[in-house]
Amino acid sequence: MKLRDLAAAIGGELLGNGEVEVTSVTDLERAEPGALVMVAESDLLPRAEASAASALLLPQKLRPAAKSAIRAGDVRLALARAIALLHPSPPVAAGVHPSVTVGTHATLGAGGFFGPYVVIGDGARIGDRVVIMAGCVLGRQVTIGDESILYPRVVVYDRTEIGRRATLHAGAVIGSDGFGYASEQDRNIKIPHIGRVVIEDDVEIGANTTVDRATLGETRIGAGTKIDNLVQIAHNVTIGRGVIIVSQSGIAGSVTIGDGAILAGQIGVKDHVRIGARATILARAAVTKDVPEGAVISGDPARPHREVLKQQAALQRFLHGDTPPPGHTAG
Amino acid sequence: MKLRDLAAAIGGELLGNGEVEVTSVTDLERAEPGALVMVAESDLLPRAEASAASALLLPQKLRPAAKSAIRAGDVRLALARAIALLHPSPPVAAGVHPSVTVGTHATLGAGGFFGPYVVIGDGARIGDRVVIMAGCVLGRQVTIGDESILYPRVVVYDRTEIGRRATLHAGAVIGSDGFGYASEQDRNIKIPHIGRVVIEDDVEIGANTTVDRATLGETRIGAGTKIDNLVQIAHNVTIGRGVIIVSQSGIAGSVTIGDGAILAGQIGVKDHVRIGARATILARAAVTKDVPEGAVISGDPARPHREVLKQQAALQRFLHGDTPPPGHTAG
Amino acid sequence: MKLRDLAAAIGGELLGNGEVEVTSVTDLERAEPGALVMVAESDLLPRAEASAASALLLPQKLRPAAKSAIRAGDVRLALARAIALLHPSPPVAAGVHPSVTVGTHATLGAGGFFGPYVVIGDGARIGDRVVIMAGCVLGRQVTIGDESILYPRVVVYDRTEIGRRATLHAGAVIGSDGFGYASEQDRNIKIPHIGRVVIEDDVEIGANTTVDRATLGETRIGAGTKIDNLVQIAHNVTIGRGVIIVSQSGIAGSVTIGDGAILAGQIGVKDHVRIGARATILARAAVTKDVPEGAVISGDPARPHREVLKQQAALQRFLHGDTPPPGHTAG
Repeated sequence: MKLRDLAAAIGGELLGNGEVEVTSVTDLERAEPGALVMVAESDLLPRAEASAASALLLPQKLRPAAKSAIRAGDVRLALARAIALLHPSPPVAAGVHPSVTVGTHATLGAGGFFGPYVVIGDGARIGDRVVIMAGCVLGRQVTIGDESILYPRVVVYDRTEIGRRATLHAGAVIGSDGFGYASEQDRNIKIPHIGRVVIEDDVEIGANTTVDRATLGETRIGAGTKIDNLVQIAHNVTIGRGVIIVSQSGIAGSVTIGDGAILAGQIGVKDHVRIGARATILARAAVTKDVPEGAVISGDPARPHREVLKQQAALQRFLHGDTPPPGHTAG
Repeated sequence: MKLRDLAAAIGGELLGNGEVEVTSVTDLERAEPGALVMVAESDLLPRAEASAASALLLPQKLRPAAKSAIRAGDVRLALARAIALLHPSPPVAAGVHPSVTVGTHATLGAGGFFGPYVVIGDGARIGDRVVIMAGCVLGRQVTIGDESILYPRVVVYDRTEIGRRATLHAGAVIGSDGFGYASEQDRNIKIPHIGRVVIEDDVEIGANTTVDRATLGETRIGAGTKIDNLVQIAHNVTIGRGVIIVSQSGIAGSVTIGDGAILAGQIGVKDHVRIGARATILARAAVTKDVPEGAVISGDPARPHREVLKQQAALQRFLHGDTPPPGHTAG
Repeated sequence: MKLRDLAAAIGGELLGNGEVEVTSVTDLERAEPGALVMVAESDLLPRAEASAASALLLPQKLRPAAKSAIRAGDVRLALARAIALLHPSPPVAAGVHPSVTVGTHATLGAGGFFGPYVVIGDGARIGDRVVIMAGCVLGRQVTIGDESILYPRVVVYDRTEIGRRATLHAGAVIGSDGFGYASEQDRNIKIPHIGRVVIEDDVEIGANTTVDRATLGETRIGAGTKIDNLVQIAHNVTIGRGVIIVSQSGIAGSVTIGDGAILAGQIGVKDHVRIGARATILARAAVTKDVPEGAVISGDPARPHREVLKQQAALQRFLHGDTPPPGHTAG
């Protein structure tokens, strides 16, 4: 593809020779003739200019000296588009492997791929062009929307509803029993969970992540939300649209998360907490109280990040004996 | 079912019209004619009274104005019983799918269900009325007691012993090698793990949870203990009876946990620590020392919760400059 | 085996009667005639001497009174060798189960074991004497070196390269998509991940652990590195040789870890951080900055462990009001 055409296709500005042929996107270590290499920071620019790469992908703040380049306002978005154009996913051949077991009254849509040893429960309804890879197990009355992809060995419990264009990575478990017990004379009595999980369109769920179904109603994950590996979503959680949840975070029962919130890695959210839209929870925070819309919080227990930083600094100065503690100006 | 009969069956007190017909348990959002709706707090009572629900399930402290109700001393226990009565689990049809592979000298009990692509190792002994769902893999000499349920894709390593009425959720791995190495000239030499895992009766283990087998003896999980999703139980751990361990907690090697202890989510317990019976470990605590019977601890490193709260408050006041620090009454 | 021969074989010093027959290694609770029992600390020595064990395995600091013994400079290494000698793993019978599905242009080496319902993708290359247990799914162009072992239900995504003598435990997922998104008008746009994972020789990866592939280049795990259960390794991480990573730790994107580093349980490492060779990260640390070679760090945010201990002690004394805070010697 000519650099000129690539620049137009990904919405970037062409700098230099638009006739340069670009055939791959690589990182700097693997730069080769034909490669487009992204450089985000100026310190790597000289090495990139000296590499075998044919062209560079740069943010607005950088300017190439020797090589032709595409400059983009959002360099990550431009990268995503360039990879998608130059490295399209190999197509999955449609077909149903003869080992697939399909329950009674289950329906499979057209144009899909169903790999070896897939098990589809009674009454399941699978949309068109769905990819279900080897070893997935779908329970009774599960529904999956068009063009969703389930990587190998995903388990979906009975009655789960999954939307269109969802991606579930290997080992994910959707719809398992919520962890709820009553106690009777020192014995733990299980509260049966008769609710379900609803996963809306365009959701991505990471490898070995677990999503429990609701006690009575729904555990719901909103459209466009992206969840990383090894995350726990407990029963009756409601997650809005376009939310990001990074690896190893845990969301306890009945939590509500607003649209566009970002939850970094290894955070924990206490049960029944409400997190406002577009809030940012920084890594490892322990969220024990409601979080207002747009707030940035951190720490354990979590508080506004600005306050946490100030207090950490004050505490460090105090423990080092450098300055008097706040509010203690006179001895 | 008449409300009068339901009240008697779940051990609650009938308030109002015992002739009301109740056919389902729902949450407030999904209240419908025929539904019993639980209300735990007074603020939701007006909405519940105005809903389409036919009757309410209330704790002792609440009293209905308009609708008939069941009042119970332990409303969660009453809920568990009501769901079990009105929404019994659909029965699993007994049978062995033709794709099940059974090792030599393995025995399957009567009345069980063995789903597609289940693999049962040599010498395994499976009790009566056991449910083993699709894709489970049981190693050699595994034993499983009567009426246990294994959800899809559970892996049980060789020689594991599982009791009666145990429930293992999808993706759980039981009996994997403990993480123990010796070092020899900068190389990590594996300590072979020849012990096993013993899971007693009525244990529940969450989705994608991992339980390692012992180096020499046993990793043991006591009767009636309930473990949530994505928990790690390391080699040689001994867990008592009726213990609760919430999601994403990690129990390091050779830890002992007494009967009835409660470990909240995302906690960590250092190797060889002993946790006393009926101790409560609050969420995210890092337990580095032995915990006495009945103690309530929190924090990192964990200490008595009362002390942690007092110190947090003192530190906050101090950092805000509101009051002199403790013990510094005169400048 | 005679104790004399065992001592010689495991590199220990014989104390007492070399003619004693030893047939097993057990823990103290299960000591029996014929057993070798390790005692690491003096407080357990009397009980071990009084047990039915035939001989003891002791560190240099201990001396037996009544029983014959082997004394070793590194008692854990001696234990590893003794178990390996007296309890060799049962051999896995070579063979390919008739249910194994093998893609086009895939090659299987000689002498291997391929269990039921294993799926091997197009173009995969599997070395000699490889064990791939039931339900594993290997993607396209995956390569696995000689004598590696994959326990049941491991998933390996396309193009992953695994070296020789690697061990992957049940439920591990290798090569899943990295968690990288660009944003466009409040929508999360996936950055396609066209890189791969390379796992070098003698690596061990725990149950249900996840390793994401790189955006463009490689996620690499160096030779001899051992990773525990439920660990998350994100895209573009580079781990050196002989590294130890304990359970439930999370390594964010593009982190580099030097040879011989030890990362204890439940730690988190921020993206792009560099951890030096032979550094030790103590349990639950949150590593937010580069760590020098050989450093010992702890805490959240992590700092040198010595400093953390000093500050914790100062803070405790201060909050208890026992002593003036550091640097505040005169009122």
